[in-house]
Amino acid sequence: MTMIRLSRTTKERSLLGLKDLSREEITFILDRAAHWEQQQEKVTPTLVHKFVANMFFENSTRTRNSFEMAEKRLGMEVINFSAESSSVEKGESIYDTVRTLESLGMDVGVIRLKPVGLLQELAERVQIPLINAGDGNNEHPTQALLDLYTMRKEFGSLEGLNVAIVGDVEHSRVARSNLWALEKFGASVNFCAPDNMRTNDLDVSYISFEEALRADVVMMLRVQLERHKGSGLFTSTEQYRSAYGMTAERMGMMKEHAIIMHPAPVNRNVEIDDELVECSKSRIFTQMKNGVPVRMAVMERALR
Amino acid sequence: MTMIRLSRTTKERSLLGLKDLSREEITFILDRAAHWEQQQEKVTPTLVHKFVANMFFENSTRTRNSFEMAEKRLGMEVINFSAESSSVEKGESIYDTVRTLESLGMDVGVIRLKPVGLLQELAERVQIPLINAGDGNNEHPTQALLDLYTMRKEFGSLEGLNVAIVGDVEHSRVARSNLWALEKFGASVNFCAPDNMRTNDLDVSYISFEEALRADVVMMLRVQLERHKGSGLFTSTEQYRSAYGMTAERMGMMKEHAIIMHPAPVNRNVEIDDELVECSKSRIFTQMKNGVPVRMAVMERALR
Amino acid sequence: MTMIRLSRTTKERSLLGLKDLSREEITFILDRAAHWEQQQEKVTPTLVHKFVANMFFENSTRTRNSFEMAEKRLGMEVINFSAESSSVEKGESIYDTVRTLESLGMDVGVIRLKPVGLLQELAERVQIPLINAGDGNNEHPTQALLDLYTMRKEFGSLEGLNVAIVGDVEHSRVARSNLWALEKFGASVNFCAPDNMRTNDLDVSYISFEEALRADVVMMLRVQLERHKGSGLFTSTEQYRSAYGMTAERMGMMKEHAIIMHPAPVNRNVEIDDELVECSKSRIFTQMKNGVPVRMAVMERALR
Repeated sequence: MTMIRLSRTTKERSLLGLKDLSREEITFILDRAAHWEQQQEKVTPTLVHKFVANMFFENSTRTRNSFEMAEKRLGMEVINFSAESSSVEKGESIYDTVRTLESLGMDVGVIRLKPVGLLQELAERVQIPLINAGDGNNEHPTQALLDLYTMRKEFGSLEGLNVAIVGDVEHSRVARSNLWALEKFGASVNFCAPDNMRTNDLDVSYISFEEALRADVVMMLRVQLERHKGSGLFTSTEQYRSAYGMTAERMGMMKEHAIIMHPAPVNRNVEIDDELVECSKSRIFTQMKNGVPVRMAVMERALR
Repeated sequence: MTMIRLSRTTKERSLLGLKDLSREEITFILDRAAHWEQQQEKVTPTLVHKFVANMFFENSTRTRNSFEMAEKRLGMEVINFSAESSSVEKGESIYDTVRTLESLGMDVGVIRLKPVGLLQELAERVQIPLINAGDGNNEHPTQALLDLYTMRKEFGSLEGLNVAIVGDVEHSRVARSNLWALEKFGASVNFCAPDNMRTNDLDVSYISFEEALRADVVMMLRVQLERHKGSGLFTSTEQYRSAYGMTAERMGMMKEHAIIMHPAPVNRNVEIDDELVECSKSRIFTQMKNGVPVRMAVMERALR
Repeated sequence: MTMIRLSRTTKERSLLGLKDLSREEITFILDRAAHWEQQQEKVTPTLVHKFVANMFFENSTRTRNSFEMAEKRLGMEVINFSAESSSVEKGESIYDTVRTLESLGMDVGVIRLKPVGLLQELAERVQIPLINAGDGNNEHPTQALLDLYTMRKEFGSLEGLNVAIVGDVEHSRVARSNLWALEKFGASVNFCAPDNMRTNDLDVSYISFEEALRADVVMMLRVQLERHKGSGLFTSTEQYRSAYGMTAERMGMMKEHAIIMHPAPVNRNVEIDDELVECSKSRIFTQMKNGVPVRMAVMERALR
């Protein structure tokens, strides 16, 4: 194991997505996350004197603060790059920004950005490992890892698990990363979405919301109705809720052991009714909690 | 003492306001602040590996940086939540943001927010202690604590002290917190304000500026003239200064031992003339300095 | 040496500019930077428990993050003052902000601001040392120090070195600081700029771009064309590139040992062609790398 790690290239220590990560690699991360979750001490300085740049070119609450928490629990030095008060405002490119932070001596970079494809290019042009914190509508690997971690902890295994991902799958990097990762573990993944929120680039079945409610995991996605204006469908949040929202009545149709997930931020009373966000079936805040040990494992993998 | 502390509930470790805090609790904080002020070492890691989230949903210079200084002097791990680059921009609520940060593993939260009443609700719905860093025009307890600390240090005792609070008391959380706290200690508090800046919800006497100048403490408040447009009164800063501004002439009418206070930021040449901001009677920058040990005491109380 | 340091006043520990810094002082900083560059350990806690406020009233990527890196490598406690979410938005002045941070207990301040002359005034009115991170179009001393460091490392000595500074010298604090510092070391500095980007307040020769290309160091400056609108000259980036841009053809005219420098951010394909930014003659990312040990030396000088 040590030898394998020593021979890892920078690119192999990066985490760009789950599509190209093996089942073994994912299992290694989830197992290590379980170690960190059980850790009594809040801070275990295993990466002391290592510098990380958190580079968010898009807004974030959960992912940004979850990474910072994970980094500080490992004793790292954290540099929060803030696009708003940087030379990005003067037109500096994302590449030049990342290269700059690398030149200053960062050991690893966490990055969220919009343009799809750019992350791959960056990873080839810089020498430090990069961790994808969400790239456009492509992948959001640490979110999917914490989702897998949550499901595995709930059900013991991912094999044979029935997962329905409901909502705006077209724009969802969370849906993509989950689909690709879950299939490696033999889970059965189906999408459920109105016509105007479907995507054609993925080999996945679409099911009705009624069928989706019979899954072991009903994963609701954040809907951004503003992206679908003029499509003639679902122009109001009420319409969306009435067709695809999780209500008490619909929750009553779910299996007893089944759970509701959501990557958040939640549109309360759109994807899920306000009173259900913290109900006994919901794992929404558990997912957030699990994100910290998962990101600790990802950070360790990048640097050791 | 230890047993009392162990039995404190989360809500009792929170600091939501001074209205419901006992004279004993306040004295405990002020005494502990005195300990920290005398401390030779800048950093005393008594809260090492404790995580605090500084959540400012409104702008701040003094309070935000004073808390961060206090936290770091106690050896804490600091997460600065920034509303501008968060999912608040996507419409996420303050409640969901606070619950998220709690889920990530914060031990305590410092929060400034605008909607009055929300802080009470938050404190009931989350499990971590919350420290009020200013909530709308309701309370600003750490500001009032540092004000009391400054007065007690100046005069030895708060009992019988004559305090005049001058200016826009209607919108002032500083005035409210000071009023409620000072009265517990037997100080005599009066307000002085033009008609359109008075408030009816407080049991307090209004005095003329001439009378106010005879107090032991003349506490000037920041005036936000834009909030009073169309009221027919004080539409210009010149008018305000001429009626309620601290000028050299007026300062000459103050008692020899009396002091001028202001929570800042100061509108120079409106509430107080530029040349008087750092004069011998002014405690404005002393107040800021005192805020750090006061907030160290508040933070300790929340976590021990 | 120890005695000299002990007798330094706050003002002498500040770094406001290079114009008034002696050759010996500059050499001392560059030598100490060389020490830090060779340091194996990333963090050497020589300034532990010292608090620095990074106060950027103008945007920055390189300088801000380079200072933070330097500070953390010295084990300092870092407070990042952010103008966007501060009371500066309520109209608080830069002076009041700096005095506030001083009152909170900072040991040193790093400051970038626009109004020329204000930094001198600040340094006289506060008691903590201040480090200039760029003040308007006056000076940018740490940038020039890292430039000198880069040149000295490249050529062994600055004496007799031929440096051409090309571009918008009128608005360039980098040009001014480099000119004043390099001349102290006996380097020969010339400017090269179109008529509308020249400045009359400096005693310096202007040369053609053809001549500039024969220098040992060709330092390109960032061009801000928007500042030159209506001047009738160089209204497009294409025009600028064709007259003053570094192209492969022009680079071919440079001496074999000569290098290209740029303080960045670079306008790719304006001052310098995209493919040349990381070519063998370019020291652009090396400059950034060198900035960290240089700023460590400056920070040490301020506090020891």
